[in-house]
Amino acid sequence: MKAAILGATGYTGLVLTRILTDHPEVSQILPVSSSRAGTPLLEADPGISEDTLAKSTEAGGKLMSMDELLEAAPDVVFSGLPHLKSAEICAPFFGRCPIIDLSADFRIKSHALFEKAYGVAPPRPDLLDQAVYGLSEWNRNLIRKADLIANPGCYPTGTLLPLLPLTAAGIIEPEVAVTALSGISGAGRSAKVNNLFVERSENMNAYSPGKTHRHATEIQTQIDERSPGYDILFVPHLIPVKQGMAITSVVKLKTRTSDEQIEAIFRKSYDGEPFVRIQRSGIPETRQVRNTNRCDIGWHRDGNRLILFSVIDNLLKGASGQAVQNMNIRFGYPETAGLRRTGEF
Amino acid sequence: MKAAILGATGYTGLVLTRILTDHPEVSQILPVSSSRAGTPLLEADPGISEDTLAKSTEAGGKLMSMDELLEAAPDVVFSGLPHLKSAEICAPFFGRCPIIDLSADFRIKSHALFEKAYGVAPPRPDLLDQAVYGLSEWNRNLIRKADLIANPGCYPTGTLLPLLPLTAAGIIEPEVAVTALSGISGAGRSAKVNNLFVERSENMNAYSPGKTHRHATEIQTQIDERSPGYDILFVPHLIPVKQGMAITSVVKLKTRTSDEQIEAIFRKSYDGEPFVRIQRSGIPETRQVRNTNRCDIGWHRDGNRLILFSVIDNLLKGASGQAVQNMNIRFGYPETAGLRRTGEF
Amino acid sequence: MKAAILGATGYTGLVLTRILTDHPEVSQILPVSSSRAGTPLLEADPGISEDTLAKSTEAGGKLMSMDELLEAAPDVVFSGLPHLKSAEICAPFFGRCPIIDLSADFRIKSHALFEKAYGVAPPRPDLLDQAVYGLSEWNRNLIRKADLIANPGCYPTGTLLPLLPLTAAGIIEPEVAVTALSGISGAGRSAKVNNLFVERSENMNAYSPGKTHRHATEIQTQIDERSPGYDILFVPHLIPVKQGMAITSVVKLKTRTSDEQIEAIFRKSYDGEPFVRIQRSGIPETRQVRNTNRCDIGWHRDGNRLILFSVIDNLLKGASGQAVQNMNIRFGYPETAGLRRTGEF
Amino acid sequence: MKAAILGATGYTGLVLTRILTDHPEVSQILPVSSSRAGTPLLEADPGISEDTLAKSTEAGGKLMSMDELLEAAPDVVFSGLPHLKSAEICAPFFGRCPIIDLSADFRIKSHALFEKAYGVAPPRPDLLDQAVYGLSEWNRNLIRKADLIANPGCYPTGTLLPLLPLTAAGIIEPEVAVTALSGISGAGRSAKVNNLFVERSENMNAYSPGKTHRHATEIQTQIDERSPGYDILFVPHLIPVKQGMAITSVVKLKTRTSDEQIEAIFRKSYDGEPFVRIQRSGIPETRQVRNTNRCDIGWHRDGNRLILFSVIDNLLKGASGQAVQNMNIRFGYPETAGLRRTGEF
Repeated sequence: MKAAILGATGYTGLVLTRILTDHPEVSQILPVSSSRAGTPLLEADPGISEDTLAKSTEAGGKLMSMDELLEAAPDVVFSGLPHLKSAEICAPFFGRCPIIDLSADFRIKSHALFEKAYGVAPPRPDLLDQAVYGLSEWNRNLIRKADLIANPGCYPTGTLLPLLPLTAAGIIEPEVAVTALSGISGAGRSAKVNNLFVERSENMNAYSPGKTHRHATEIQTQIDERSPGYDILFVPHLIPVKQGMAITSVVKLKTRTSDEQIEAIFRKSYDGEPFVRIQRSGIPETRQVRNTNRCDIGWHRDGNRLILFSVIDNLLKGASGQAVQNMNIRFGYPETAGLRRTGEF
Repeated sequence: MKAAILGATGYTGLVLTRILTDHPEVSQILPVSSSRAGTPLLEADPGISEDTLAKSTEAGGKLMSMDELLEAAPDVVFSGLPHLKSAEICAPFFGRCPIIDLSADFRIKSHALFEKAYGVAPPRPDLLDQAVYGLSEWNRNLIRKADLIANPGCYPTGTLLPLLPLTAAGIIEPEVAVTALSGISGAGRSAKVNNLFVERSENMNAYSPGKTHRHATEIQTQIDERSPGYDILFVPHLIPVKQGMAITSVVKLKTRTSDEQIEAIFRKSYDGEPFVRIQRSGIPETRQVRNTNRCDIGWHRDGNRLILFSVIDNLLKGASGQAVQNMNIRFGYPETAGLRRTGEF
Repeated sequence: MKAAILGATGYTGLVLTRILTDHPEVSQILPVSSSRAGTPLLEADPGISEDTLAKSTEAGGKLMSMDELLEAAPDVVFSGLPHLKSAEICAPFFGRCPIIDLSADFRIKSHALFEKAYGVAPPRPDLLDQAVYGLSEWNRNLIRKADLIANPGCYPTGTLLPLLPLTAAGIIEPEVAVTALSGISGAGRSAKVNNLFVERSENMNAYSPGKTHRHATEIQTQIDERSPGYDILFVPHLIPVKQGMAITSVVKLKTRTSDEQIEAIFRKSYDGEPFVRIQRSGIPETRQVRNTNRCDIGWHRDGNRLILFSVIDNLLKGASGQAVQNMNIRFGYPETAGLRRTGEF
Repeated sequence: MKAAILGATGYTGLVLTRILTDHPEVSQILPVSSSRAGTPLLEADPGISEDTLAKSTEAGGKLMSMDELLEAAPDVVFSGLPHLKSAEICAPFFGRCPIIDLSADFRIKSHALFEKAYGVAPPRPDLLDQAVYGLSEWNRNLIRKADLIANPGCYPTGTLLPLLPLTAAGIIEPEVAVTALSGISGAGRSAKVNNLFVERSENMNAYSPGKTHRHATEIQTQIDERSPGYDILFVPHLIPVKQGMAITSVVKLKTRTSDEQIEAIFRKSYDGEPFVRIQRSGIPETRQVRNTNRCDIGWHRDGNRLILFSVIDNLLKGASGQAVQNMNIRFGYPETAGLRRTGEF
């Protein structure tokens, strides 16, 4: 099987390269970079090993151009391209092979909401209806048949996984407050002064609060589709770590809900899930899921308020890891193929 | 004027040494360390300069013992000692000179609440009634006459400063959710595996949520004393920075409150305050108050919910800086004497 | 195959657990902790996954005691115990199964030199002669037959790999200056104020220079054994990263050596080695080997002086990774089994 | 006195703003930014305080344009502009007021060497001869009368201060090996992928070794001017800290030099210097000079080799701090005016 990576030198592309190197079903990696086509892989990314080179013989151990990729006829295309560019560049592959788009271009079906969040109309409205939102644990059946998978954002993944069981069960009040802490890699690899080491080290801050963050719309949309009536207040923060996301959500229990009921609701949603862990002892830390595709969820009750804790690696379960999980689902591979579950200490 | 520092080699002690070195009214610094008495200052703390040594001639440029301090007859005593030890060790100075205690020993007047938070009875109940809670901007008149100042905790300082104007004005609903992010120095300088560099780098997590953190009791107590009826949910997080604290509080506006009213409420509380800045453009970042005694406050409205952002340096306005501000108030010095207001970039 | 890990909650133990989880030949992991025996693995180390639990059924998913381990009859014992304790605790397994000791207890054969470095006599002189120094690429034949492998220190591994080809070839002058930069995990997991996050963040410094660092003796000993006559000056530095080691060595070329000769010398030593990469473009960075068992080596010539650059992950190739590489050699497994070669970006 | 800052939003400009805010002789700060002229200071730099605004009334609390600066007639001009741009932009002020240029444009008098290091001819050869190299401790008499001060680079400052006493005394062999570790702010505030937080966190590496770094030429030039015959090998490294520089130099003692002689040589050079500390106990760490204008120097002898340790804050003594020290010298102010000597812990 041949897997193409558009935007292979961005952070999600670099992670995809690593995962696909370890993936037992992928025999060829086709890494594409329009700006650096022809550059030897090992020069662009000295972290890779001979194991990656052994799977990129068709690319000649180099970054490919789009033209070369079209020739190469991939079996699946991952796009790690920026929002508003990805849809257009991926489009030629539609109908040829499944596309897993890590950008936001196909995540929001409502034209109005997309425009509110991104400032312009959705780039390829013609394909929008066929896109399946790739939150693996909740859309598995649709993903199985999808040819266009809109891979979720990192904040939405980390927020929705603990929330959806509760909104679905209808046990919480409409107002939800989500505080999210993200590592800097969430901002991507473009050269911005605000993301320089010097600006971020020994620094932290909230940004784009409430409705002003694009992911707030994505989260609200997903909740609305499944369980209308909730009002999500979302406040993201930038934290000086490379990879990692911790989300703390405060909800109010609607009725006299027992701890056992909460436990049962989570168990029902996630028992047997290979990448979601319900942690009952201690509070999850981001290091324990770093470099894994896991989402670990904990909670603490304070009277009738419930605090939810969820941690993911924003580049793995929040991006490239879930993308490969979706590929596994789509192609009928074991869902854990190529994906790590063991985190750091 | 002679200023004593008990616990001079802890983080708050090290910061006090720096501030008092720059303080125009302090002529002698008397640094005390029971475990390291006799050690040259420059060896215990190579960061200090000749400027500090010039002010520690009476201590012989060395760390002093408690016995030596009693001889030296300080004009003010700062205690950077641990909770449950500080009160007892400070007590001999009561009646001799003003005491500014940075520990929690005198912060909570209710024996029951103290015991709930700290697991034991307040260590010196006989002195408790005379202690004034040293939140400078709100207790200035009491501090002026106090001989025992209970210097506030870092989380309470950063939480109360943005909240008190709103609870006092009575414009918010009872339920408040506070998410606090703290640098690691908040945990003190004791050797614990959990605070090693390796455990904290590339890691973040919530801890002691809801009523389980001791500072939750301190915050609730202060709100209750001034404006009963609010229920504060407090969720602290550990973040890999050395110094810095960012607090994001979500409140619900009770009535049709205009932005102008909110602005006016904050202006009324803090206009002219040298160490509180109401920031209307952008969201405060912790670096901008690092190494200063400032608290910068911003807010964002999302419908009828209001998000409050506050940043302090946990060791300055959250500890040693406010302690010196309180000394300035108590002794009638200019309130900014010795205290920096210019932060990092 | 059953692999025991003594000191399973130390940093090298935590890394061993991860590697052995992925190792195709290891069916049972026996994790031992004398201080925390009986604690569930998942509580002691929330980073592990179901994959580890599936391999620790014999331990009941818990940390074992030494007595339980003796019962369990491991096929190999890894010791991540501290220096001066490890030898004694490992000794009962000698003759029963191969022992791979990550401590320094068996690394230096000379009693005098050991005592100079560690302040006391070697703890088990009776076993010392049978120990093989486990620098995989240079002692492979001895390791194959060894029952006691003294796994090298991190600094020695990172220093010797680029130096040994040159000292063996006899093309450099006797005086060598080695500057080594180490992440904080090199100091182990014991609770020391000097390794707290607050002490290390935004800080760096040299320490134990010249002959005063214990690893200087280990390096000198290894050079002396193979190519006597060199004088290694070693200066280590502490750097605020979790994992990683960068070593810069300055040597003087003895005769008119061409670049091609240098290249050929390195190629001869390391061509075909799965874990040593000679990098000819750019200078190696530590991130590219993070979480891998690789050592990447580069060099730059400046007249008749040659600067050598080597990077390893101090916990992998510098400790637990090389330990498993040695197990692979000893048991005749493929040398790369269970070991990652793909680094971070 | 009016002090202008060209490039006020770069890292050296931001630090200059802070120092001059505290400087007792500076009454007006004139901050210039060609790209952001007209922006309120507080918006461009929320770290500053009312204290800075009180000194920027003439600039209207805003960033100025070059035209406005020419009108304002400053008494001194600091330039934090980039190399190859600074000289040209500063030139109009020559003859009007002293210029302190923090760029490299006037540091190297030899046209050939400048061209070798910077790839082009020196930008203003006509002014070059009048420039004085601003290494304060060694050129004080020249600086007193200079109208054009070429402020030294950070690496040269940190390298030359420990080396010059030894080369001047003639007690070391010609070959010197310098390993330098720099925080990321040394790379300036321009948006480069390689300096993003994500690229630098958990990473370190050597770069531009030997003659390939521009500062190597600057160092060699200064040594040659004073004591010809030494060959400096310079190897810089990038370290994940915001501010800080640690330099480890290895020299060989030429003759039987006693420790007392070494001590005496350093004492002779630096006794009484307010910003150079000879540290005899322990090894200097960068935190102890963070945010100060100090250079702390230690050494360790290993046989006939001597290891020199020096630490500075690359933005202070390595840039803006020394620039103000030079202003103090030039204008006859106390040399420590406005400059901090107390570091972090």
